[in-house]
Amino acid sequence: MSHPEFKFLPRLRKQLFIVVFGTDTRAGKLFDIILLWAIVLSVVSVMLESVREIRDAYATVFFISEWFFTILFTIEYLLRLFITIEPKKYAFSFFGIIDLLATLPTYLTLFVAGGSYLVVIRSIRLLRIFRILKLGRYLREASVLTDALAASRHKILVFLGAVFTLAMIMGTLMYMIEGGESGFTSIPRSIYWAIVTITTVGYGDIAPQTVFGQVVASMLMLMGYAIIAVPTGIVTTEIAQAERDKKESEAAAKRVCPNCGMRGHDDDAIYCKNCSAKL
Amino acid sequence: MSHPEFKFLPRLRKQLFIVVFGTDTRAGKLFDIILLWAIVLSVVSVMLESVREIRDAYATVFFISEWFFTILFTIEYLLRLFITIEPKKYAFSFFGIIDLLATLPTYLTLFVAGGSYLVVIRSIRLLRIFRILKLGRYLREASVLTDALAASRHKILVFLGAVFTLAMIMGTLMYMIEGGESGFTSIPRSIYWAIVTITTVGYGDIAPQTVFGQVVASMLMLMGYAIIAVPTGIVTTEIAQAERDKKESEAAAKRVCPNCGMRGHDDDAIYCKNCSAKL
Amino acid sequence: MSHPEFKFLPRLRKQLFIVVFGTDTRAGKLFDIILLWAIVLSVVSVMLESVREIRDAYATVFFISEWFFTILFTIEYLLRLFITIEPKKYAFSFFGIIDLLATLPTYLTLFVAGGSYLVVIRSIRLLRIFRILKLGRYLREASVLTDALAASRHKILVFLGAVFTLAMIMGTLMYMIEGGESGFTSIPRSIYWAIVTITTVGYGDIAPQTVFGQVVASMLMLMGYAIIAVPTGIVTTEIAQAERDKKESEAAAKRVCPNCGMRGHDDDAIYCKNCSAKL
Amino acid sequence: MSHPEFKFLPRLRKQLFIVVFGTDTRAGKLFDIILLWAIVLSVVSVMLESVREIRDAYATVFFISEWFFTILFTIEYLLRLFITIEPKKYAFSFFGIIDLLATLPTYLTLFVAGGSYLVVIRSIRLLRIFRILKLGRYLREASVLTDALAASRHKILVFLGAVFTLAMIMGTLMYMIEGGESGFTSIPRSIYWAIVTITTVGYGDIAPQTVFGQVVASMLMLMGYAIIAVPTGIVTTEIAQAERDKKESEAAAKRVCPNCGMRGHDDDAIYCKNCSAKL
Repeated sequence: MSHPEFKFLPRLRKQLFIVVFGTDTRAGKLFDIILLWAIVLSVVSVMLESVREIRDAYATVFFISEWFFTILFTIEYLLRLFITIEPKKYAFSFFGIIDLLATLPTYLTLFVAGGSYLVVIRSIRLLRIFRILKLGRYLREASVLTDALAASRHKILVFLGAVFTLAMIMGTLMYMIEGGESGFTSIPRSIYWAIVTITTVGYGDIAPQTVFGQVVASMLMLMGYAIIAVPTGIVTTEIAQAERDKKESEAAAKRVCPNCGMRGHDDDAIYCKNCSAKL
Repeated sequence: MSHPEFKFLPRLRKQLFIVVFGTDTRAGKLFDIILLWAIVLSVVSVMLESVREIRDAYATVFFISEWFFTILFTIEYLLRLFITIEPKKYAFSFFGIIDLLATLPTYLTLFVAGGSYLVVIRSIRLLRIFRILKLGRYLREASVLTDALAASRHKILVFLGAVFTLAMIMGTLMYMIEGGESGFTSIPRSIYWAIVTITTVGYGDIAPQTVFGQVVASMLMLMGYAIIAVPTGIVTTEIAQAERDKKESEAAAKRVCPNCGMRGHDDDAIYCKNCSAKL
Repeated sequence: MSHPEFKFLPRLRKQLFIVVFGTDTRAGKLFDIILLWAIVLSVVSVMLESVREIRDAYATVFFISEWFFTILFTIEYLLRLFITIEPKKYAFSFFGIIDLLATLPTYLTLFVAGGSYLVVIRSIRLLRIFRILKLGRYLREASVLTDALAASRHKILVFLGAVFTLAMIMGTLMYMIEGGESGFTSIPRSIYWAIVTITTVGYGDIAPQTVFGQVVASMLMLMGYAIIAVPTGIVTTEIAQAERDKKESEAAAKRVCPNCGMRGHDDDAIYCKNCSAKL
Repeated sequence: MSHPEFKFLPRLRKQLFIVVFGTDTRAGKLFDIILLWAIVLSVVSVMLESVREIRDAYATVFFISEWFFTILFTIEYLLRLFITIEPKKYAFSFFGIIDLLATLPTYLTLFVAGGSYLVVIRSIRLLRIFRILKLGRYLREASVLTDALAASRHKILVFLGAVFTLAMIMGTLMYMIEGGESGFTSIPRSIYWAIVTITTVGYGDIAPQTVFGQVVASMLMLMGYAIIAVPTGIVTTEIAQAERDKKESEAAAKRVCPNCGMRGHDDDAIYCKNCSAKL
C-alpha cells in the first residue's frame, strides 16, 4: 500500500485493494474471514468426496459445491490480478501460483476426468489465520521459528545430502545381502527401505529376514538414532541464538545513562548502576 | 484456606475442609493416601474387567467393586461440593469436572449398557502423588517443565498448525498417486497416513506401493526427520531459559542495597539502581 | 585398598585382592582382560545355543561350555567374596548381585529345566572395558553423561509419570472407540498400543480402523511428537550445564594474579589482564 | 600442491595434477563436473539395472554402460595414481580405497557372477559437490557439523555401548518370556527386535503377544524414548560450543595490542596479557 503509484489509482480500485489485500479495516478483515471459511468448506468437501460411500450418496451436492467454490475462487483470483498495481508480481508470487494451481484443475475436468483434488493446496492459505486474527504474539513466535530454520538451511541441506548418500549405500548393500525374497526386490526399493529405517519410521512392509541383513539393519538403526541428534542440535542452537538476538536488541533499545552512556538498565532503575547519575 | 469468609464457617465444616482439601495435617494426608489407593484399585478393576477371560470368571466381583467405588467417589464429590466455600468454583474447576465425569457414567449404565470406563480419567488425580508425599524437589522440577511448556505453547501451536497443513497436502498428493489399492482409499485416510509418517510412528497398515508414491513418501519422511528438530529446539531453549531464570532470581535475591534495602541488582552493578548508594 | 584394616591382611590375600579388584598392576589388568573374554565367550555361547539349528548340531559343545563357564564364574564369585575385607558389602553391591544372578541359574537347571540364559546379564560387566583399558577420556565423557542423567532423574520421572497417565487415558478411550475388532481387545492391550504410539515405535500389530479412532490416534501421535521434545530439552540443558561446570572448575583452578587476585587468565598470558602485574 | 618436490615435476604432469586434483582452475573445475556427472549416471544405471523389468528390457544398454563407466573410472584411478607425487598415500587414503572398491568388482564379474553393485559407494564422492561448486558457506557449515560430531564421538561411543548392552539384556529377557511363537525364535533375533524397539523404528515383523512381554516391551519403549535425549543433548551442546568458538575466535582476532601486536585478548582485558601495555 506504500507503493508510489498507489495514490493515483481510481478510488474504487483503491478501496477494493484495501479490502482484498489488507487486514486492517473491518471490511478487509471480514473479506479474509469469509475467504478462510470458503477454503475450509471447499477442502472439507473435497475430502468427504474422496470417501466412496459419501460420494455415492451425495454425488450432486459435491458436483454443485465443487463448481461453486471453483467459480468463487476464480473470481477472487481475477479480482486480485486486476486490483493489484503489479499483476505480474502477484501472478508469480508464492500465493499467486497456489491460487492458480488450486483453481485450474476443476476446469480441466471438463475435458479429462479426475484431478480436482489440487484445491487442497489452497489450505496453505489457512496459515494466514494468525495474521488475520491479529495474533501478534503468534506471529512473533512464528518469525523466531522461520528465522531459525532459514539460518540453519545450509546445515540442514548438507545433513540431508549426507543422510541420502548413507541411504543409497546401505540400501544397495541390503539389496546385495537380502536378495529379493524379503521385499528388497530392487536397489531403489532398498533405498526406500533405508530411508524408512534411518528416519525411524519403520513401516515393516520391507524388513530383513537373513541374520546378516538384520545385523546391517541394526547398525543402520543405531546410526539413524545417533544422527537424528544432528538436525535437532542445529535447530536448537539457531533457536537459542534467535531468542538471544531478540532479547539483546530489546535490551539495547532500553534506557541509556545520560552521564556515562551505559545501556541495559533494568526497567525499574532510577539511577545508573555504573556511575550513579540519575537516569 | 486464606479465604476471608473461612473463619466464619462452622467448626466441623472447617475441620472437614482441612482434611479433604488440605495435605498438611496428619488426617489430611491420610485422607489423600486412602483416596489415591481407591483410585488405583478402581482403575485396575476397570482394566481387568475389560479382559474377556477375567470378566467372565469374576463377573460378580467386578459388579460389586464398580458400585462400591462409584458410591465412594460420589460421596467424596458431594462432600467436596458441600464443604468448599465456593461450590461453583470447584464444580467448574479442572478436577471438579474430572471427578464428575468419572462418577456419572456408572449411573447411566442403569439405563443404557456400557460406558463405565470413564473412571479411568480419574487417574489424572494420581499425578497429585508428588504433592501429597511432599516431594518438594519433584514439584519444583515439574514446575520448570510446566513453565517451559507454557512459555512455548504459542510456538508449538504454530508448529502443529504447519505440520497438519503439510500432512493435508501430502496426504491428498499420495491419494492421487497411489489410488486406493495400497490402503490410500480416501483423502482423510491418506492424511492419517501422512501424520503416521511425519511423526515417524509408521504402523505400516497403509504403505505406498508404487515407485512414485515411495519417492514422495521418502521426501515426507526426510522432512519429518528434519522438522522433529523444531519442537525439540523450542522446548530445549525454554527449559534452558527457565533454569537460568530460576538461578538468576536466586542470585539477584542475594545482593541487597545497604541504604534502601532493595534486592535484585545486576552482578556488575556498582551503585544501587534505586537510591544511588554504593553497593 | 585404602581401607584401614587393609595393611593387617595376610600377604597372599593382599596380593590376590590387588589382582582381582585392582586394574593398576600388570597382573590385575591381565586378570580383568581374561575375565572380559570369558564373559564375551559365555554370552556368545548362550546366544548361539538359542538358535535351534546350531543347538541341535552342537549340543555337547554347549553343555560343556555352559558348565565350564558356570564353574569358572562360581570360582571368581567365591574368590571375590573371600578376598574382600567386607564380604557383605560386595555381596549386596550392584556387581555382586549381578555376579550371583548370572551364576545361580545353571545350578537350578540340575533340578528344573531351562533358565540358564541369565548369564547374559553378566554382559553389564563388559562396560568396565573402558576402565580396564585406561581409556580415561571415555571415562570422563561417560561421567558427564551419568551426571547429566542423574541431575535430570527427577524431571524424567515426573515426565514418564505424565506420559504413562496420558497412555492410560488415551488407551481406554481407544478401547471404547475401536471395540476389539482391530486389536484393541482389552484396556491393558490398548494402553500397550498407546505407549507404542506415543513413543513413535509404531509396530502396526494393533492399529485403529475406524475413522474416529484414526482421528484420536492422529492427535495422540502429534502429542507424542511434541512431548518427545521434553526429555530431550531436559537432558540437553543438564549436559550443557555439566560441561560448563567442568570448564569453570578447570578455569578457576588456573593461575591467579599475585597483585589483584583475579583468576581465569589464559594459558599464554604473561601479565595480568586486569592490573598488568607480572603473573 | 605445496609439496616440496612439486616444482621439479615435468610440466605435463604438473598441469594434469592441477586439473585432476585441483578445483581452482577452469579445467580443474570442468574435470570435476564431468566426473560428478559420470558418477551420477553410473549410479543411476546400476539402480535401474536392479529393477527386473527394466533389466530384462534393456540388457545390452546396461552391459555397455557398465563397462563404459568401469573403464572410465579405471583410467581416472590410474591417472590419479600416476600423477600424484605420493602414490601410496593416495592409494591408502579414504577416497583412494573407495575409487578402487568401486572399480574392481566389475572385473571380477568376468570370472564370477554378480557383485558390480559396489559402484554405488562411489556416490560418496558426490558430497564433494559443495567444494567443487565453491559453496564456501556450505563448507563452513559442514565443518561446524563435522567438528561437533568429532568432538562428541567419545560420548556417542560410550552411549552406543550402553544402548547395545541394554538391547542384549532386554532381548534375552524377551526370548525367555515370549518363547518363540511371536517371532522371538532365538536370542540374536530378540536382540534385533530390542534394537528395532529402542531406536523407535518398530517394524512390527516381531512383536510381543503375551501380556508380560508387552509390559516389558512398554518399559523398553519408554526407556528408548528417554534415552534418545542423550545423543541429542550431546550433539546440541557440541554444536552450540562449536558455534561459540567460531564467534569467539572471530571476536578475539579483532582486539590487537598497540604495543606488541598480539591478538586474542578477552573482552574485559584492560592490559595486554603479553607485554602489559594498555589496550
